Amino acid sequence: MIPAQPKLAFSRSEYRGRLEATWASMERNEIDLLLVTDPANMAWLTGYDGWSFYVHQCILVPLGEDPLWYGRMQDVQGAYRRTYLPHDRVVGYEDHYVQSTQRHPMDFLAEVIQQRGFSHQRIGLELDNYYFSAAAYLSLQKHLRRSALKDATYLVNWLRVVKSPAEIDYMCSAARIVEGVFERVRSVMRPGLRQCDLVAEIYDAEIRGKGDDWGDYAAIVPLIGAGPDAAAPHLTWTDEPLRANEGIFLELAGAHRRYHCPMSRTFYIGKPDAKFRETEKAVREGLEQGLDKAKPGNTCEDIAVAFYTTIERYGLKKDSRTGYSIGLAYPPDWGEHTLSLRRNDRTELRPGMTIHFMPGLHFGDWGFQITESIAITNTGHECLARVPREIMVID
Amino acid sequence: MIPAQPKLAFSRSEYRGRLEATWASMERNEIDLLLVTDPANMAWLTGYDGWSFYVHQCILVPLGEDPLWYGRMQDVQGAYRRTYLPHDRVVGYEDHYVQSTQRHPMDFLAEVIQQRGFSHQRIGLELDNYYFSAAAYLSLQKHLRRSALKDATYLVNWLRVVKSPAEIDYMCSAARIVEGVFERVRSVMRPGLRQCDLVAEIYDAEIRGKGDDWGDYAAIVPLIGAGPDAAAPHLTWTDEPLRANEGIFLELAGAHRRYHCPMSRTFYIGKPDAKFRETEKAVREGLEQGLDKAKPGNTCEDIAVAFYTTIERYGLKKDSRTGYSIGLAYPPDWGEHTLSLRRNDRTELRPGMTIHFMPGLHFGDWGFQITESIAITNTGHECLARVPREIMVID
Repeated sequence: MIPAQPKLAFSRSEYRGRLEATWASMERNEIDLLLVTDPANMAWLTGYDGWSFYVHQCILVPLGEDPLWYGRMQDVQGAYRRTYLPHDRVVGYEDHYVQSTQRHPMDFLAEVIQQRGFSHQRIGLELDNYYFSAAAYLSLQKHLRRSALKDATYLVNWLRVVKSPAEIDYMCSAARIVEGVFERVRSVMRPGLRQCDLVAEIYDAEIRGKGDDWGDYAAIVPLIGAGPDAAAPHLTWTDEPLRANEGIFLELAGAHRRYHCPMSRTFYIGKPDAKFRETEKAVREGLEQGLDKAKPGNTCEDIAVAFYTTIERYGLKKDSRTGYSIGLAYPPDWGEHTLSLRRNDRTELRPGMTIHFMPGLHFGDWGFQITESIAITNTGHECLARVPREIMVID
Repeated sequence: MIPAQPKLAFSRSEYRGRLEATWASMERNEIDLLLVTDPANMAWLTGYDGWSFYVHQCILVPLGEDPLWYGRMQDVQGAYRRTYLPHDRVVGYEDHYVQSTQRHPMDFLAEVIQQRGFSHQRIGLELDNYYFSAAAYLSLQKHLRRSALKDATYLVNWLRVVKSPAEIDYMCSAARIVEGVFERVRSVMRPGLRQCDLVAEIYDAEIRGKGDDWGDYAAIVPLIGAGPDAAAPHLTWTDEPLRANEGIFLELAGAHRRYHCPMSRTFYIGKPDAKFRETEKAVREGLEQGLDKAKPGNTCEDIAVAFYTTIERYGLKKDSRTGYSIGLAYPPDWGEHTLSLRRNDRTELRPGMTIHFMPGLHFGDWGFQITESIAITNTGHECLARVPREIMVID
């Protein structure tokens, strides 16, 4: 009994609009057949949502035609339940292709492409995606000698950069969740608490969510930097106890139906020392100056430069980008891999863009993170979540 | 202040032994320089552990020399803290390489390879890894014209297939955790409970762990199949309430220091109907017959065939593999991508191999999973976790 109605996160007309936008971009880029391997792009186009991206799979988009889902045979049941596609556009490959040293799932995909008459066409590939390996490329190159293989790495990602009202709604749900997570952290943090026990509380608040805004898994696990380890931005928890008189940053996200609202805050158990307070002042002013530039017509660079120059007046320097596009995401990244807040990114800000303004600062033996997730509006921007923009002091 | 002693999960001599085994395999495979992009292989070789695999990074292993860590500049602080490498063997790339449309981190890696004098060598690449994209390959191919690029996809993975006593210890910790998770599930499952609230309990038990066996994140989020959705093996939770008179499978893992003990059980709220009881009988007998073959000298295929032929006597059929190697893992997969329990996999079982014996069965409108994680011993095998091998009935 396959449900007559698959469970979809958006209306059929919204999916249709996305497909038409994809066709238009394919036409502009002279692509006849697009292979979509990014799980977020697959979900955005067809609704497909499942943890099957650890095996090779993709959505095939022929220009002007409905997409096809391609994946492992046992996952066609997931495609039946989580995409709007008719069953004859869901194609499974046999299990002996899975993690085999003798054959590759893309060998069989090449056959499917030939059978459907696409093999003489210009085929767009997401060359720089986690789920399109070098071996996948080499298999298609070997089997599709009559095709022109073209780079279409961020083609769909760029179509996702401006969110629809329904997408913004999901991100607002994710924002309610992340507010609840920081409330929870504030209420349980104390010296001696093991990092893992803190993270268990974070997960509990993330996944229960807030009322009807139930929590989905975030594309990145909670990141923690306590004391000198806060110098490193991407470490995860251990069972070390939290210590008094140390700064602790947490970077995490609320997620709802795969849409994210990331946020970082720095906590301090005890009385923050002067360098924390001075950095807080610089980062808050930098955020304000950057947010001031966050409006349609300005560019990503404008926000970044406003932040960089503000903190430079405090004698601080940030060598890395200070934000990126966010929305629908799967592990290992909740960034969309399109716009970045950095010098030379002249992407024009448009209403509906959503960005994690992420001015993390990391020094040789400590770190500091206060961030905001924002949506560009018609006249400026909105911060998605309301969490006090300050060091959270635990007495 | 960088800690003088990095935090490592294993002794320096254990890392040294792994490195020497890698050199030996490189020599056999005529590789002078190995590029290791799989985060689990990176951790196994050097200790490196951080959620930075969403940007390009790798370990370079020159034959007969200590490895080099290569990654994003801000992550060198993580490498200082989580590898045994001296700082002059930790190389960071500038932030403008990150998710850029103009330059690729592998462009700069090619320069590093040239500078260090490796560019005329035979370079082994993990061609079919999530974290080595087609674009990464094309960049190296373009910049390293004097190198012979060779496929070394599972070279390190195969060295990991037999675990050391210290690794088995971590997997036993993970087993204690997964036992606790199923106890928790049993104590909270009831009709009307939202799936997300159940999963919040699972995370809480997974991450707190059991006593000193603190919980790390699993490489796959908890998978759930309730009622007709149990036909699909890889869906994740929603806020739907659990219903009486339905089967519900959960596939999840305990994890400790990145080592996994996965396990699935099927729950039933109410009195299981005949097809569930009959399938339970078949799967239990199939597991027993398969486990009977799980001893040194036999092959992976022996276990699989014993399982397949047993359930066929019950009129059941499984078209997919029924297990795979497990151990150290990062998202998106806790499988090691080496041995599989399936026909034609003639890998000989050796003491220290660890396997998720995973005979999941999925039908058009329901599913059934009871699994075991095992270690091959000198004389046979051991089940890592002790969880009743039966349908867990919730009255």
